Amino acid sequence: MANEFVIQGVKLLNPAGEVVTANIFVSGDKISKISADEPANTKIIDGKGKFATPGLVNAHTHASMTLLRSYSDDKALMDWLQKDIWPIEDKMTRQDIYWGAKLAAVEMIRGGTTAFADMYGPCMEEVAKVVDESGLRGSLSQGLISFANGDKKLASNVELYKNFHGAADGRITIMLGPHAIYTCPPDYLKKVVVEAEKLGAEIHMHMNETKTEIEDCLKNYGKRPFEVVAETGLLDCGMLAAHCVWLSDAEIEIMSKKNVRVAHNPGSNMKLASGIAPVTKLLAKNVTVALGTDGASSNNNLDMLEEVRLAALLAKVDTLDPLAVPAAQALQMATEFGAKALNLSKVGRLEAGFKADIVLWDMGGVDWQPNYNPASLLVYSANASAADTVIVDGKILMQGRELKTLDEEKIIAEFNSCANRLTGKNS
Amino acid sequence: MANEFVIQGVKLLNPAGEVVTANIFVSGDKISKISADEPANTKIIDGKGKFATPGLVNAHTHASMTLLRSYSDDKALMDWLQKDIWPIEDKMTRQDIYWGAKLAAVEMIRGGTTAFADMYGPCMEEVAKVVDESGLRGSLSQGLISFANGDKKLASNVELYKNFHGAADGRITIMLGPHAIYTCPPDYLKKVVVEAEKLGAEIHMHMNETKTEIEDCLKNYGKRPFEVVAETGLLDCGMLAAHCVWLSDAEIEIMSKKNVRVAHNPGSNMKLASGIAPVTKLLAKNVTVALGTDGASSNNNLDMLEEVRLAALLAKVDTLDPLAVPAAQALQMATEFGAKALNLSKVGRLEAGFKADIVLWDMGGVDWQPNYNPASLLVYSANASAADTVIVDGKILMQGRELKTLDEEKIIAEFNSCANRLTGKNS
Repeated sequence: MANEFVIQGVKLLNPAGEVVTANIFVSGDKISKISADEPANTKIIDGKGKFATPGLVNAHTHASMTLLRSYSDDKALMDWLQKDIWPIEDKMTRQDIYWGAKLAAVEMIRGGTTAFADMYGPCMEEVAKVVDESGLRGSLSQGLISFANGDKKLASNVELYKNFHGAADGRITIMLGPHAIYTCPPDYLKKVVVEAEKLGAEIHMHMNETKTEIEDCLKNYGKRPFEVVAETGLLDCGMLAAHCVWLSDAEIEIMSKKNVRVAHNPGSNMKLASGIAPVTKLLAKNVTVALGTDGASSNNNLDMLEEVRLAALLAKVDTLDPLAVPAAQALQMATEFGAKALNLSKVGRLEAGFKADIVLWDMGGVDWQPNYNPASLLVYSANASAADTVIVDGKILMQGRELKTLDEEKIIAEFNSCANRLTGKNS
Repeated sequence: MANEFVIQGVKLLNPAGEVVTANIFVSGDKISKISADEPANTKIIDGKGKFATPGLVNAHTHASMTLLRSYSDDKALMDWLQKDIWPIEDKMTRQDIYWGAKLAAVEMIRGGTTAFADMYGPCMEEVAKVVDESGLRGSLSQGLISFANGDKKLASNVELYKNFHGAADGRITIMLGPHAIYTCPPDYLKKVVVEAEKLGAEIHMHMNETKTEIEDCLKNYGKRPFEVVAETGLLDCGMLAAHCVWLSDAEIEIMSKKNVRVAHNPGSNMKLASGIAPVTKLLAKNVTVALGTDGASSNNNLDMLEEVRLAALLAKVDTLDPLAVPAAQALQMATEFGAKALNLSKVGRLEAGFKADIVLWDMGGVDWQPNYNPASLLVYSANASAADTVIVDGKILMQGRELKTLDEEKIIAEFNSCANRLTGKNS
């Protein structure tokens, strides 16, 4: 049965960016109108004391890596990866991928996230199952590394696309996931292009994350990563590029021209000491900059509101300009630009005709007083626990902080059994 | 009647930094022992599923500025100050100072803060009253600006010291608060020194916050701020220096030699685009670096856990070293170093003989799973809503997120009336 309800008397930003109080009419999977009209004869959600925003979009994560949260922190990159992360990842089973992603889904819903771009695997069909069951939107790709069964993995990512692209009423979409320039040489990327073109699939890839990556690329190919990748044809498939920290002006030109969408991950870039992405430069060149958490072993959470705040703060201190990335723009990066990054049509705005992906934030907390500017309060003062109600495709996934689609207690128990089996160390 | 209770079966970091499960015995205002001994015949607080840390110390704030939260954001510094902040501050009454600080007290307790260093005024006796009533610790100073009734203000800060230093069982301490080098020329600072020496009072001052401040100081005095201030004798009184963003190596030497304690305010420094303090350099020179939120109009909250995270993240990305300021060190900055910054004796550690200033963090949330390292989870994953129980001087200020000393609903109402009267704009 189609959803029909009205969120009454809620605050929101109108298209001009002004705070207004209005009623949001939801019909089926869409917002049918936003107006002062009185709702008649329909289910009412009380919006009083709440601030409505589009759902947050996590444009880059590895959901099942929640299993490695707090397992290895404050280490040098290669110690972290080679000694701690990879050996455990090697042991992960289908079941681990499922429960890791399922805990991630709980965490994302609790933090006001309604869609995510995930790159991991194998067994991404388990993550697809979690997307289906949770009610979230997910844009999934398998992480492809050429030297470790590269062809087989590519075939598996293609299979994933064929089986799941557009599934769960369109909430599941699939991209191809070549991992990075240092794990996927140009010849392999060309194979990816061939498959992507056949399917009409887009690409999700780590790009220009660390200084070492650039140096190695220059050494190996005499060019910078975006230049190498552009020559393979990969950018013409449409790319969601994660990180994009170290960029030359020439690369930014390429990105702008090829409509590369960026997933900026300030929390991960800070924690792993990767560097500061040139966000204001990218925005000035009309590059779509969305936000992501990266995996929970390099963040260590999936809290998008924290990324919104970090994006706003880091851009200011990096440029020494207090006007860089204001609150409303940071919020736009996590919503409208996130939807663009994931190539989701009619998602990411509170507007008639758009998908009803909505978060209601509770403004009752002491950190919301006084209330001169709810967008500013959300970005600079509140935390994720203010997410009260989460709606995706017109379906309520959480209300009054109570989850409607997932059994949190059971998920935490199953998840911790997986962690115990993997490491023997979880307390 | 003296407090006597035991926090049973709680996780904490032992002096070697290892996670252990133990019982914390509280007697009167102190921790009497931490051990595996069975508690006998006393009140029990169940510590199962909780992580105990020393209370967080906010080493620099302007509590009553909560009244200006979200009133003016994303503006250039001088527009912000001159057009928005100062005109409202001019209108603040005794009542505003009180209710502003009282809301701040609610927010601090809810976020696991047990002590704060506050510089504001006039009417700092109102903040002293809030410290008394809330059960928090407060180290208060009046902000002194030479050109605006400088002598009168200094006399008022001296009066504050005489009336309140050591009050509320020692929970209230007083410092003198010369505002900054650009508002207090050397001759005025020398007057402050005279009074400080008579009282044995310490100094709380903004130092080296912006690049402009350094440039102006060089222009006016031919020297950098710490050099000018050192010559006035002010550093010999003992100084808590807020910000310390722009420092020469020579200044760091002076700070180290004069035992200047720093209140690092990463959130404010990022939001106002002031710059990045050289925290790892300061720590390497054995300078005590504590953490602060600054006022809620430049942060915009009093969430110390967020400052802990920002301190850890910002130091890493600034130095491109993932080992810079690990989780446990960031936590130490907010606890033990915070207590040192405020010159609080036997505060800031979970250890027999120390004051019972304790926070119990609830580890049940999804963002605490799996649990390999609670310190890492607290710093990199949790948010302030995990603060479950807050104890100061052996007295319970919050338990199960229920406030025990303050009436939150009434405070929010009174506070919002003040904001309405001040601005006419609060919704």
